[in-house]
Amino acid sequence: MAKVNDNYLKLPGSYLFSTIGKKVNAYAAEHPDKKIIRLGIGDVTQPIAPTIIAALHSAVDEMAAAETFKGYAPDLGYAFLRETISEHDYKARGCDIAADEIFVSDGAKCDCSNIQEIFSTDNKIAVCDPVYPVYVDSNVMAGRTGSYDPATETWSDVIYMPCTAENGFAPSLPKQVPDLIYLCFPNNPTGATISKARLQEWVDYANKNGCVILYDAAYEAYISEEDVPHSIYECDGARSCAIEFHSFSKNAGFTGLRLGYTVVPKELKVEGVNLHPLWSRRHGTKYNGAPYIIQKAGEAVYSEAGRKELNAQVAYYMKNARYILEGLKGAGYTVSGGVNAPYIWLKAPDGMKSWEFFDYLLTKANVVGTPGSGFGPSGETYFRLTAFGTYENTVEAIDRIKAL
Amino acid sequence: MAKVNDNYLKLPGSYLFSTIGKKVNAYAAEHPDKKIIRLGIGDVTQPIAPTIIAALHSAVDEMAAAETFKGYAPDLGYAFLRETISEHDYKARGCDIAADEIFVSDGAKCDCSNIQEIFSTDNKIAVCDPVYPVYVDSNVMAGRTGSYDPATETWSDVIYMPCTAENGFAPSLPKQVPDLIYLCFPNNPTGATISKARLQEWVDYANKNGCVILYDAAYEAYISEEDVPHSIYECDGARSCAIEFHSFSKNAGFTGLRLGYTVVPKELKVEGVNLHPLWSRRHGTKYNGAPYIIQKAGEAVYSEAGRKELNAQVAYYMKNARYILEGLKGAGYTVSGGVNAPYIWLKAPDGMKSWEFFDYLLTKANVVGTPGSGFGPSGETYFRLTAFGTYENTVEAIDRIKAL
Repeated sequence: MAKVNDNYLKLPGSYLFSTIGKKVNAYAAEHPDKKIIRLGIGDVTQPIAPTIIAALHSAVDEMAAAETFKGYAPDLGYAFLRETISEHDYKARGCDIAADEIFVSDGAKCDCSNIQEIFSTDNKIAVCDPVYPVYVDSNVMAGRTGSYDPATETWSDVIYMPCTAENGFAPSLPKQVPDLIYLCFPNNPTGATISKARLQEWVDYANKNGCVILYDAAYEAYISEEDVPHSIYECDGARSCAIEFHSFSKNAGFTGLRLGYTVVPKELKVEGVNLHPLWSRRHGTKYNGAPYIIQKAGEAVYSEAGRKELNAQVAYYMKNARYILEGLKGAGYTVSGGVNAPYIWLKAPDGMKSWEFFDYLLTKANVVGTPGSGFGPSGETYFRLTAFGTYENTVEAIDRIKAL
Repeated sequence: MAKVNDNYLKLPGSYLFSTIGKKVNAYAAEHPDKKIIRLGIGDVTQPIAPTIIAALHSAVDEMAAAETFKGYAPDLGYAFLRETISEHDYKARGCDIAADEIFVSDGAKCDCSNIQEIFSTDNKIAVCDPVYPVYVDSNVMAGRTGSYDPATETWSDVIYMPCTAENGFAPSLPKQVPDLIYLCFPNNPTGATISKARLQEWVDYANKNGCVILYDAAYEAYISEEDVPHSIYECDGARSCAIEFHSFSKNAGFTGLRLGYTVVPKELKVEGVNLHPLWSRRHGTKYNGAPYIIQKAGEAVYSEAGRKELNAQVAYYMKNARYILEGLKGAGYTVSGGVNAPYIWLKAPDGMKSWEFFDYLLTKANVVGTPGSGFGPSGETYFRLTAFGTYENTVEAIDRIKAL
């Protein structure tokens, strides 16, 4: 008789964004006259840039003729894209990452959640608190997290690394040594970053203790300050302890096109076993390559024209971020993030908890954000706003909040 | 200290298609004057049909304008596509499958390999022998298959169901009751099918014994005979025991576009637990939806113009299949498949083993096929040819074989 993976049954029932969706829909149904502005989910609003659109059309035309039609893509990605990534995202920054260490996929979310499969289920994971829920949930499903305590909203076998105002929302090295360490900088949800020197401490710690760092660099394009690393491979020794995830969603608006990549350096070993062929085997067995036309669109991201257009797109969102940051500061809020990241992390005022503040903003200003507690217990009195709205909506939302 | 998933280390090192690739490349390098014809891998060669190309261009244009731009797709697929699939692939055939029981994905290979994640690791799987390697390998990675015996090329904890000339390449009900049963009809690699009455026996067996059937219908579009079921849901009771996988790769040439779907009926329960929300949770956590433009292309597959073009495409490949089948029969080979499937399964002549015949065909006729042993021990003296080449190449390849 078939049996289910009962780890799935341990997952708490309500999903953050579906709870938000239900609350917003209920309010909208009751108040059809109100214009609700959504600065909650991290989805982009600007259309795909012209150079990328042209690349998509051109690739579609290739699929229409027998001479240029492309069937199965190479499991690990087309060489033209892997080489372009290696050149622009790594070699140009002095990072030694070769094309064949880059695994193209349909997005960083899939890779972030699938990567744990190549590790033993008895590895212990460490995550920031607050954290992008996918890191934890994918490990819950694999049976790596122990039991869930609804009172504290934590798992017994997960090492939580609090990111609070006291530590500038950058975690301290954990006291108990984990096996796998999830880090995301610039951070979702706090928008915080760490300096290259601080990241080097993590790399040294991982190498010393035999940990693997799973480094999510999805928001790298939003870095504006000098000392913030764009890749963990800027740190010495990262090739022997770190896997890095990249997304095309936020730098190029690919949330609906789906493209990402993961770097697994060839010398990265665990128990003497190279991880590169393991991830390669996973891709070959459980994945079938990203669509050719999307990979051609990815290539166009790195063209001169593409980069120019995308820099303007990032600047557009960061103008939103500045408006949110300065507007809320001016109104007396305690805010952070928004300088090297498209997320603004604010303290709920007047001792409110994050869901209270959610309801308050929804009903008083008709603005939707994300309650910090949805990302972990340390987010309990915090709130996330995203800079991915239109400029007009962002201005209107912040002006409404200021007027409260 | 991090530890690897050592189930990966149990996987035999050489992959069927990479071994084939190496052999073919080595031969080609030594004989640059020879024209090698590849009828090995099941990849299509006809370009994407005009109606689908038009849908792709139109969807790309939508991505270019803020008013029509699409960000994150719904995790489970756009309603327009799920409803279209429900209507055409199910309701039109009298199968009661609702749109919200259809999970859109980037391909049947991913779904076939990921589906085991929602089941306990102590489920025992049953597979046909020969079989599409992905079913077994994904279970090896999850630790469900025991130990590997290189001598027999089998796993200790897998129930193999031989598909031989004696049983018409259709498996008998297993003596030992499995928990999960992988079935694929029309079959890859043998091209065999079973009647609706025979499939009903499997459904009844699964319902009686609490098994779940994982039914791969990737080649359904190639069915030409009356009594062959297009979906397992044509059988009574399948909604309480079966999950079905569909691909757009073979019916519409989407191998390079990547689209598929999986059906999990709402009443399908295991140990009293509904599987629908589990698969939904997996999609929501470990996947991020198929690209909008590809889903629009998928919708166009079902349009009147699209269906007409794709019927012609299937007919093109089946003309190849007939040429292969009749040509080889005429030359005295023992062949099957090729009537309801794009695969032709032939017995290697003169007592040759399948790799011997591979080398023989490569060197004597410069034709590449797939050795049957790559699909399992019962394929040891068999060989697979695909009908997915161009007509001209197919004719030339078969004429060369006939002339040997």
